[in-house]
Amino acid sequence: MPFDITQSMPFIGNTLYGALRENCGVEWEAYVGHRFVRELGAGTLAKPEFLAWMVQDYLYLVHYTRAYALLVYKSSTLESMRSAATIVHGLLHEEMSLHRKMLAAEGITAAQLEQAPETLETLAYGRYILDRAQAGDELDLVVTLSACLAGYGEIGLRLAADPGTKFEGNPYLDWIKTYSGPIYIGLVKEGLERMEDLAQTHGGTARFPLLLAQFRQAVQLEAAFWNAGRSALAMQA
Amino acid sequence: MPFDITQSMPFIGNTLYGALRENCGVEWEAYVGHRFVRELGAGTLAKPEFLAWMVQDYLYLVHYTRAYALLVYKSSTLESMRSAATIVHGLLHEEMSLHRKMLAAEGITAAQLEQAPETLETLAYGRYILDRAQAGDELDLVVTLSACLAGYGEIGLRLAADPGTKFEGNPYLDWIKTYSGPIYIGLVKEGLERMEDLAQTHGGTARFPLLLAQFRQAVQLEAAFWNAGRSALAMQA
Amino acid sequence: MPFDITQSMPFIGNTLYGALRENCGVEWEAYVGHRFVRELGAGTLAKPEFLAWMVQDYLYLVHYTRAYALLVYKSSTLESMRSAATIVHGLLHEEMSLHRKMLAAEGITAAQLEQAPETLETLAYGRYILDRAQAGDELDLVVTLSACLAGYGEIGLRLAADPGTKFEGNPYLDWIKTYSGPIYIGLVKEGLERMEDLAQTHGGTARFPLLLAQFRQAVQLEAAFWNAGRSALAMQA
Amino acid sequence: MPFDITQSMPFIGNTLYGALRENCGVEWEAYVGHRFVRELGAGTLAKPEFLAWMVQDYLYLVHYTRAYALLVYKSSTLESMRSAATIVHGLLHEEMSLHRKMLAAEGITAAQLEQAPETLETLAYGRYILDRAQAGDELDLVVTLSACLAGYGEIGLRLAADPGTKFEGNPYLDWIKTYSGPIYIGLVKEGLERMEDLAQTHGGTARFPLLLAQFRQAVQLEAAFWNAGRSALAMQA
Repeated sequence: MPFDITQSMPFIGNTLYGALRENCGVEWEAYVGHRFVRELGAGTLAKPEFLAWMVQDYLYLVHYTRAYALLVYKSSTLESMRSAATIVHGLLHEEMSLHRKMLAAEGITAAQLEQAPETLETLAYGRYILDRAQAGDELDLVVTLSACLAGYGEIGLRLAADPGTKFEGNPYLDWIKTYSGPIYIGLVKEGLERMEDLAQTHGGTARFPLLLAQFRQAVQLEAAFWNAGRSALAMQA
Repeated sequence: MPFDITQSMPFIGNTLYGALRENCGVEWEAYVGHRFVRELGAGTLAKPEFLAWMVQDYLYLVHYTRAYALLVYKSSTLESMRSAATIVHGLLHEEMSLHRKMLAAEGITAAQLEQAPETLETLAYGRYILDRAQAGDELDLVVTLSACLAGYGEIGLRLAADPGTKFEGNPYLDWIKTYSGPIYIGLVKEGLERMEDLAQTHGGTARFPLLLAQFRQAVQLEAAFWNAGRSALAMQA
Repeated sequence: MPFDITQSMPFIGNTLYGALRENCGVEWEAYVGHRFVRELGAGTLAKPEFLAWMVQDYLYLVHYTRAYALLVYKSSTLESMRSAATIVHGLLHEEMSLHRKMLAAEGITAAQLEQAPETLETLAYGRYILDRAQAGDELDLVVTLSACLAGYGEIGLRLAADPGTKFEGNPYLDWIKTYSGPIYIGLVKEGLERMEDLAQTHGGTARFPLLLAQFRQAVQLEAAFWNAGRSALAMQA
Repeated sequence: MPFDITQSMPFIGNTLYGALRENCGVEWEAYVGHRFVRELGAGTLAKPEFLAWMVQDYLYLVHYTRAYALLVYKSSTLESMRSAATIVHGLLHEEMSLHRKMLAAEGITAAQLEQAPETLETLAYGRYILDRAQAGDELDLVVTLSACLAGYGEIGLRLAADPGTKFEGNPYLDWIKTYSGPIYIGLVKEGLERMEDLAQTHGGTARFPLLLAQFRQAVQLEAAFWNAGRSALAMQA
């Protein structure tokens, strides 16, 4: 039985996000069904690749946070400013701390983290988001960020529902649980609801082709980013 | 016989610009029918006020040019980039030179011009445009700039058509001729056509309330800007 | 005995901020010694003017917050990002709430607040800051914001130390206490220390003339902003 | 006899650019001595790779132009605005036309060009420049762009002076002549002189470590960009 997004994320319904995802078929599958994701689920992903990827994910988060800071700046209502500021705060004070702790437990210090060079995948994705964030309006920004926000939730739910996923003894079980868990899925729901509100006031339907082009580019960069760990290891070799 | 915009600028027709202008009634009249404009037409405007205003207009042009530079950066097509770059080039190499020459003929040197302090009206309008330019997308930017671009054409045409306008011996006749002349009106037509194209691809109708709010603010700042000459003279006193 | 900044804010010492303030003599006095400030201290400021000013101050805070969001985006270290994000959070969740509560107690609702039109003073100052924030680097941004941050602390301390200040029965005593109190002065100290660190790594001394020009403009806009209440009342009349 | 930059570009002398290049030894050599460059000189570079690279170079130029548009916006003097606007104009109306003509002669239409997907190398480099352009001040921007501007001149001069370069029958001779010719070297000289002026007013020496970090990243991305042709061919396969 294939994965059914309408059951797992019923809140997508008839939204702009649903239409973007639907129209991104091939690229979307390349992202959510990437080899890295399948190996995470099977528990067979090589540890050094996972750690190298986590370091790049940490470096990416810096720019993801900067993009949400631009959302505070670009918001047209106080409520949107507050919502984006809460995300910035959470990223800086919680999500990045979790990454640091997890990597510290594996012997990677904060100083090593800050000095790690970015791979091409990390540079391309982080800076692409920031360019869309500065060049477009708040809807452009939120659409570009949604590939990451909602995609990780879908990947988590897919892995959690997949009979091929190894649960016992899988070293990446925490990762799967985080992104399939109710807290993260709640954040996805909230984020997509805000995006839908923006779509209503900012001409989401009328701008669909332009929004789709940048959503598709973000999805392609997400797919490429799964290779960031291998690229980082190759740079060190 | 009142001024009829549909006759003077038939290209406005059923455009986004037409709807914005229409919905800005009171503020629009305060802008295009300002005391400064009426005195220009009657030729009774005090010369020192006109010169002080021209200096502020020159300082404003710096920021107006910076806004068009942001339009190059924000454009989603090469054709839009080229069009905006041509405007930037024209502003820096022609329009600003004309201001400098005209003011030099009145004894105001380039050095004096650069050092002239900006009035509140100049600061508020120039920086408001730049903020909308950075925070919004290219449609937000072009809508905000249209109050200036098309409003000056309308003012030129109104004065040219007004039986109360003094033509013989009016020291401001050049100004009236410039903004009512076919070259400037051609630029207005071209600019509004580009804006209408953007409105089609960027959800102009769906975003109308938000676009109207920033258009109205720009119109109010245009009206206020007619007082920039008096404010500058008061600062010197 | 005149006010001695080296005693009240010993942490200024030999900093970039100290040099900027020192080189801004006339404009600085026009700011910290403005009629509005003197009437606050004497308790003679008309209540309607104060309330109208508070509404404008609230509208200004929206753009001040957006400037700090840009500081998160522009920061070159994680520590600076975190510090700026904490300020954004505090402004949105505390300082603006305090304004709303205070104004609500005077019968001004949140809806009235959001719809209040901005005066020229508010537009000019808020958007000037945002333009410097986008056009410059993090040092340009922090220098521009320091006129507000540290100036209010100095005004608070001056009023608290001034024998002419009325303490008993002064309706504005809370305002004076807030800005002269240890919590606010601690924030000023922390902000200026961060600015000094930035000055060291970002060429503060070598860029002094350019930094001074924008600091002076910010100080002039602060002085003008004390008139925002009167301007708002005039707009309503 | 090794290549001597002080003879070929005597105007570098004791400039900020000279210090940046000097401190970037390993990365600089990886850039100017890349396999792609050597094959260009030897005339052995495979035509399909060269054409695929030219297409990516064209896509990169769009973002390079956008960065110079931001320089117009960020400039602190009218002269700098004019200089940057002239570059924007030249890129849009000349350099990009030359690329289109050259590629059209090889059967690649304008429509194919606009629709060509960007490689990771192109995305990473173009958007990295734009992020530094928006986050920093005009000196940050100009330093980041100088890796491209001056590096291509150095590569041209190196190839022109290299006894190993094939001149007769080399299909890439035009490319070598363009970047080693007096027109391009004149542009490099002018650009570096402007950068040195900016370094004087904007604290170039005092900010050296930060400027070096972003210059080095740009140089690494230039080196990586020589692989953009191969990456593009791999994407098509």
